[in-house]
Amino acid sequence: MTLDLGAARTIVAAARDHGRRADLNALTVVVLDAGGHVVAAEREDGASIKRFEIAFGKAHGALALGMGSRSLMARAEQQAYFITAATFAAGGALVPVPGGVLILDQDDATVGAVGISGDTSDADEAACIAGIEASGFTPKAD
Amino acid sequence: MTLDLGAARTIVAAARDHGRRADLNALTVVVLDAGGHVVAAEREDGASIKRFEIAFGKAHGALALGMGSRSLMARAEQQAYFITAATFAAGGALVPVPGGVLILDQDDATVGAVGISGDTSDADEAACIAGIEASGFTPKAD
Amino acid sequence: MTLDLGAARTIVAAARDHGRRADLNALTVVVLDAGGHVVAAEREDGASIKRFEIAFGKAHGALALGMGSRSLMARAEQQAYFITAATFAAGGALVPVPGGVLILDQDDATVGAVGISGDTSDADEAACIAGIEASGFTPKAD
Amino acid sequence: MTLDLGAARTIVAAARDHGRRADLNALTVVVLDAGGHVVAAEREDGASIKRFEIAFGKAHGALALGMGSRSLMARAEQQAYFITAATFAAGGALVPVPGGVLILDQDDATVGAVGISGDTSDADEAACIAGIEASGFTPKAD
Repeated sequence: MTLDLGAARTIVAAARDHGRRADLNALTVVVLDAGGHVVAAEREDGASIKRFEIAFGKAHGALALGMGSRSLMARAEQQAYFITAATFAAGGALVPVPGGVLILDQDDATVGAVGISGDTSDADEAACIAGIEASGFTPKAD
Repeated sequence: MTLDLGAARTIVAAARDHGRRADLNALTVVVLDAGGHVVAAEREDGASIKRFEIAFGKAHGALALGMGSRSLMARAEQQAYFITAATFAAGGALVPVPGGVLILDQDDATVGAVGISGDTSDADEAACIAGIEASGFTPKAD
Repeated sequence: MTLDLGAARTIVAAARDHGRRADLNALTVVVLDAGGHVVAAEREDGASIKRFEIAFGKAHGALALGMGSRSLMARAEQQAYFITAATFAAGGALVPVPGGVLILDQDDATVGAVGISGDTSDADEAACIAGIEASGFTPKAD
Repeated sequence: MTLDLGAARTIVAAARDHGRRADLNALTVVVLDAGGHVVAAEREDGASIKRFEIAFGKAHGALALGMGSRSLMARAEQQAYFITAATFAAGGALVPVPGGVLILDQDDATVGAVGISGDTSDADEAACIAGIEASGFTPKAD
């Protein structure tokens, strides 16, 4: 099962809808495929200029190490130097705070990741999960 | 007048609709604000993995030098070394072939740019123009 | 409302005038537009060689995350790894100490940012604020 | 003799004044010291977003190889691969078209460089020369 543009659009729409219902700050939502490449992205009005890159870095970091960015944060709190090194190794896009969530299919295979930035890291992550669940895939946040 | 997410989504949808009606290859559409930052992006199924970066580079190059990417191509054919140098100077994202079109408001101020990659450069540019016209803004392709 | 060169020059002049009256060290003042691009810059005699880049990084970091660089410092003290990652994600120019102040218009829209480096971070920030206030815009330092 | 901020400001003002009198497009003017570091910069309203980087690259390239950027263009036309390689070696900021002019003192020592972008390369160079001459220094365009 693969993540097509239709599913990515569903994730973006549902994540943003979650944000509006939860009264979150302007969100930027980025959906990547299993290879770490952009499938869809939207930045809500009022977001600051580098939110795309932050959201991309959360999702890309999750794919880079095969774990949700919440686990990257846990590792950063234990071994900041490892996360810094992995960021270099991964080419610079690895943001180790919640809000980067893997997208799994029914066989638990990773088909992509969602990254969101704009509100608190916890709220960003909740929006990722809402988006993924609306698409029928399974979120993995840690 | 600014380019909000609503307008950017209109541009993406109309560009993709143009592509389907014209039977183009899978398109990747990227809309940037006046500062060169991502507002919206979609990559159609079947596109190769770096189409986002190519489409981004067309739009970003147009904004960098204040002209549609068709004019960047003309300059590249005359002075390839200038375009190479400008690409470095602009940070690496400047793709000098048609398919990067400035978005002008009613006062001819630049409010953003669209980049498309996936079919021939001419067809990519036509899809940019269709998208911008559907949004009520004015395209500038050269 | 946009930040034109006339306003940027007013900000530079008033910030430097503040520095002279307060007997600060040589200041470097950089004014960016809302997209993070240089509008005006001046480096006072005696400043060290990379003050432009430091001042740029304060202002660019403020725009990147939509908060004055004093808030970036607070975040760095709580989660240094996040600020390190955001610096990579933003392309390298994000200096998380006071002295990067957002420029807001009367609708609280961000129209640019000022970065200053040369004296203590607190004194740099005070010069930013003096400059912005002289231009009729509103400073946001945190 | 050194290039202080007062002289740099004179150069910027005179170059821009030349541009207005000659009815040039919006100019971006960057003045670097002998070490290649920014002393002063101004971007006129309406300029595209990466004009600072282009103007910087002209001036920085001139200092990098110790010749005005017109000579860099001549070299690029003979040996484009050398200029490409020198651009990498110099860190990316070397734009080999006219509009990057060395600033010489009365002993023919290089005290800095001016880079201008916005109009044709020849017109950009003429504005550099006008600026330098107004400051009492000597321009070296090739």
